[in-house]
Amino acid sequence: MKSIKFINLRKECKIKFDNLLKIANELGIDIDAPCGGREACGKCRIVVLSGQECLSPIKDSEIKFLSKDEIEYGYRLSCCVNIVKEGEIVLEIPAESLLGIQRILIKGLEPAIKLKPEVNKIFLRIKKPDLKDLRAHTERIAETLREKGIKVNKFSYTVLLNLPEVVKNSNWEITLAIKNEEVIALEAYDEADKLFGIAFDIGTTKIVGYLVNLKDGNNLASYSLINPQISKGGDVITRISYAMKDKDKLEEMHQLLISAINEIVGKLCKKARLKREDILDMVVVGNTAMHHFFFNISPIPVGLSPYTAVVGREIEVKAKDLRIEINPEAYIYSPPNVAGFVGADAIADILASEIYKKDELSLLVDIGTNVEIICGNKDGLQACSTPAGPALEGAEITFGMRAVRGAIERVWINPEDMSVKYKVIGNEKVKGICGSGIISAISEMLKVGLIDNTGKINYENNRIKKVNNEYALVIAYKDETSIGKDVLITQQDIRKIQLAKAAVYTGITLSLRHLGLNFSDIKSMYVAGSFGNYIDPLSAKIIGMYPDIPLQNIKLLGNAAGTGARLLLKSSELKKEVKEIIKKTKYFLLGHEESFQKEFIDSLYLPHKDLDLFPTIKRLTLLSG
Amino acid sequence: MKSIKFINLRKECKIKFDNLLKIANELGIDIDAPCGGREACGKCRIVVLSGQECLSPIKDSEIKFLSKDEIEYGYRLSCCVNIVKEGEIVLEIPAESLLGIQRILIKGLEPAIKLKPEVNKIFLRIKKPDLKDLRAHTERIAETLREKGIKVNKFSYTVLLNLPEVVKNSNWEITLAIKNEEVIALEAYDEADKLFGIAFDIGTTKIVGYLVNLKDGNNLASYSLINPQISKGGDVITRISYAMKDKDKLEEMHQLLISAINEIVGKLCKKARLKREDILDMVVVGNTAMHHFFFNISPIPVGLSPYTAVVGREIEVKAKDLRIEINPEAYIYSPPNVAGFVGADAIADILASEIYKKDELSLLVDIGTNVEIICGNKDGLQACSTPAGPALEGAEITFGMRAVRGAIERVWINPEDMSVKYKVIGNEKVKGICGSGIISAISEMLKVGLIDNTGKINYENNRIKKVNNEYALVIAYKDETSIGKDVLITQQDIRKIQLAKAAVYTGITLSLRHLGLNFSDIKSMYVAGSFGNYIDPLSAKIIGMYPDIPLQNIKLLGNAAGTGARLLLKSSELKKEVKEIIKKTKYFLLGHEESFQKEFIDSLYLPHKDLDLFPTIKRLTLLSG
Repeated sequence: MKSIKFINLRKECKIKFDNLLKIANELGIDIDAPCGGREACGKCRIVVLSGQECLSPIKDSEIKFLSKDEIEYGYRLSCCVNIVKEGEIVLEIPAESLLGIQRILIKGLEPAIKLKPEVNKIFLRIKKPDLKDLRAHTERIAETLREKGIKVNKFSYTVLLNLPEVVKNSNWEITLAIKNEEVIALEAYDEADKLFGIAFDIGTTKIVGYLVNLKDGNNLASYSLINPQISKGGDVITRISYAMKDKDKLEEMHQLLISAINEIVGKLCKKARLKREDILDMVVVGNTAMHHFFFNISPIPVGLSPYTAVVGREIEVKAKDLRIEINPEAYIYSPPNVAGFVGADAIADILASEIYKKDELSLLVDIGTNVEIICGNKDGLQACSTPAGPALEGAEITFGMRAVRGAIERVWINPEDMSVKYKVIGNEKVKGICGSGIISAISEMLKVGLIDNTGKINYENNRIKKVNNEYALVIAYKDETSIGKDVLITQQDIRKIQLAKAAVYTGITLSLRHLGLNFSDIKSMYVAGSFGNYIDPLSAKIIGMYPDIPLQNIKLLGNAAGTGARLLLKSSELKKEVKEIIKKTKYFLLGHEESFQKEFIDSLYLPHKDLDLFPTIKRLTLLSG
Repeated sequence: MKSIKFINLRKECKIKFDNLLKIANELGIDIDAPCGGREACGKCRIVVLSGQECLSPIKDSEIKFLSKDEIEYGYRLSCCVNIVKEGEIVLEIPAESLLGIQRILIKGLEPAIKLKPEVNKIFLRIKKPDLKDLRAHTERIAETLREKGIKVNKFSYTVLLNLPEVVKNSNWEITLAIKNEEVIALEAYDEADKLFGIAFDIGTTKIVGYLVNLKDGNNLASYSLINPQISKGGDVITRISYAMKDKDKLEEMHQLLISAINEIVGKLCKKARLKREDILDMVVVGNTAMHHFFFNISPIPVGLSPYTAVVGREIEVKAKDLRIEINPEAYIYSPPNVAGFVGADAIADILASEIYKKDELSLLVDIGTNVEIICGNKDGLQACSTPAGPALEGAEITFGMRAVRGAIERVWINPEDMSVKYKVIGNEKVKGICGSGIISAISEMLKVGLIDNTGKINYENNRIKKVNNEYALVIAYKDETSIGKDVLITQQDIRKIQLAKAAVYTGITLSLRHLGLNFSDIKSMYVAGSFGNYIDPLSAKIIGMYPDIPLQNIKLLGNAAGTGARLLLKSSELKKEVKEIIKKTKYFLLGHEESFQKEFIDSLYLPHKDLDLFPTIKRLTLLSG
């Protein structure tokens, strides 16, 4: 469970005095509400942590679905809650309320930007041709635009094809969509107030699409699908190897993405009651491999040493060229890839976090299947990456599982009797442990001395079992689980997490070294990525994955890549800023750095060999340096 | 037979001391030479009118194929003749030597321009990626180009698709084709000296393609096909009516053009041993209806009052968007249409004639199925059109036929005994009369008094016959023909030619009036169009189709539209000039002018009601005003 602050309910925000379910939807948080907000299913549960005074009182329909304890704890049904007063409201969206089985943050907080989409629409009444005015259709339109101070230098081809029929049927009352002095779409009559764009974050695991109203900047709907390439391999390297077999395989991988995206477009259009042609602009972001697969560009160089990207600049391609089923003349834009393993999604993260604008030093960590680390400020950014994701996401762990119902997501160990408490997603019987649960468990084990700072299990405890010749901590006993056996964290599991967290920490250390700076210089840390947002920051600090900076300076961005993609749709100015960002971002290949080995080994310790780097943790865990 | 001056054999021309068959081929004149220039068939006959001293002496192989009389008259076989000295050579290409059944001028004279194609190629050796240089492929290339002072801001999509494989196979030695800062093509190794473009003139009757070497400006080959749309109607209006039936019909008409053009591309590539992808630039010109059909834009507004074009500005579309089988990322450019009946081909005519650059007043008449009339100078141009073509081309005439073998193309009448002599294309038995033959015949009839200045046949002559209740002149008696009957010119035929020539002359008159000028102000008259170039200018003056200006000021441009299209391929500067031309060209709808009716009726006279407008003709024909 994570808190989501609706900070944009302050003065500058347009969403005021409205229903919470509607707001969540506009923010792109898909809260499970099978009845569609008719107060009839009781599924859209939220927890109000603060700001109760801004909300409407409890309704009878809520009392019907919520227990007395729950109401006391702050539970509400979001469909029943209206905001009645301005103020800061802090909410928790419980995992069980999030739509879909897998918990993936669909929406993060967006920085406020000036709405300035690259596509605009204009309605025109045009003088009809007659014997005294024989101008061609195009000139008639161009000259009417010129009178309004709008310059056009190109009519896209599909527009020319439709032009004679549309003007005939509409009696020369038409709406044009214009992007960069090109007329890209044409409609009969006045449709100028309908202007829509779509943003995509193509993750290795999941593809999320966001439909945006470009007239007011509101997010209309979002929808996600598991990346269908997953059938060809869970990670990027396996998929590149698959695509290397032959040209057909590359085409197949490309087609899988295109089909999934077209399916999402269809769902979003249905949700918002739009035609596909109404979507006039599109932004995609993804890691370098996903980016290349999407554009059907061979990602083979990404998978072979020295792991370079083929395309390191922005791409803009017409939808028709990629068979993306939106308006055929709409442009699909992707920001540049930084390098083979720091893709266009990292640029979107940078935009969403705004670290490239700030004077102060910021650290940005996007934790997905791959972990990208970016460090710097307006004067320059250092980027690197590590494939630490799978262990952190639970994939390589004995009882590891994705963050779905039945997964332990949080662990508490009582230092008195070493008894274990845990929280399961969906309040079901235990099936396994997800990544945030493992990190939580290891940090607790360290705190109570069940492991030492090398990660070695202290086996003199009745909670510790020996299984297959290695020690393991029993988190849940057989009878508490739905799988008929004890759910354990083994010595091997701990070693794997140590390797992963050490890689992340080493990345941060070396980034700072490239900048000639220290941990104490970091003023803010931004955590992005679906998985990163479910990790408890304190646990991550205790095991030494995050540096020891004050908790209040660690900011959860949600799915920052998706946020960045939406920002690019909403503001053409940001495309110019992207050109600046790519210029000031330096990449280094983490594993090939000279000091990598030593730093990595020191970082394997919990939290680190040099405890002085973690002063607050040292106090908390009673570890001695 | 028309004379073609090889004026470009002067100093500034690169073609020197070369073989005439080769030169003709480079100029795009397809001389019939079945043996392929091996001096074995005797078909490539030409007549040398002056400049014999510049040519190699008669060879034995010529003596084998040519009669003594012919040799004395100046006949040579072009495959046997080498130019051995610089100078001005004037040749006649007899109709029977021109390739194909129908005589259509494939090539006209080209003004000298500075070669500056919009597409250029460059060969690059690029530093390979290594662990110390992790730049993306695109940045590696862009930076190498930047070092050479070449800016690139886009890689076209197909280039990105091929990039990883091409650099891998060629060890990073690549050739790029760049157009307007966009990389449009990519090849392995050094292919920088291969740079080709293709120009098309899409006529209502015939489609001609020209393959041009953009490295040296030479015309490599040309090829033509009958416009396959002819099966849906001979003229533009019938075809538009056909396309109006439904959307499928428009698509069908479009597809007919695309297929024919792709066939021509194939033939030209085979001739020049190129791959289709080697063609990196394309220009098309055509009348407004052909232009719209080619781009698949409905030409319906062209066919309905007030007869306007849909597109009145230049179009640039990727070859892949039109399924034209050249390099998929090559651009296809068309200059703008002036109006519904003065198309992009007229802009090409204007470029070829260079009238838009001159101080002096020029008149440009393009006689095809439609007749376009353009009048003016660098300060402004007046354009109008008339559908007078069919009669002038023989289509609406009793024994009319196209200018193919068996057609009478020239007539002489002896004023003493009214005996008729004629010249038949291909020296075959008579089948009928082509347009130039009819104009020649009517002018001779007027000269000898067989018709009066109203066009009425003076029937008191044994050469005049009464057939179906109307008088007619026998041009060829039954036994001279291959059709088993007398070939005649009837009173009706003469009336039809009068209507057609009056429309042309009225167009010229009203154009001048729009400019506030008179006939005496015309310094040059340019005749363009396949058919126009076969009309004898004196005959055209005698019947009053051309104004009475000195013969030496009437210049035959050949297929000026094709020439203009090639010029646009060779010089990107001309595209800027096109924008200026379209701005300074005013169009008027001839038939809707107030004074049209009176002018037209006066122009029905032969040559005109007001004989003072034709002082030299008045003298020549002994007509009295």
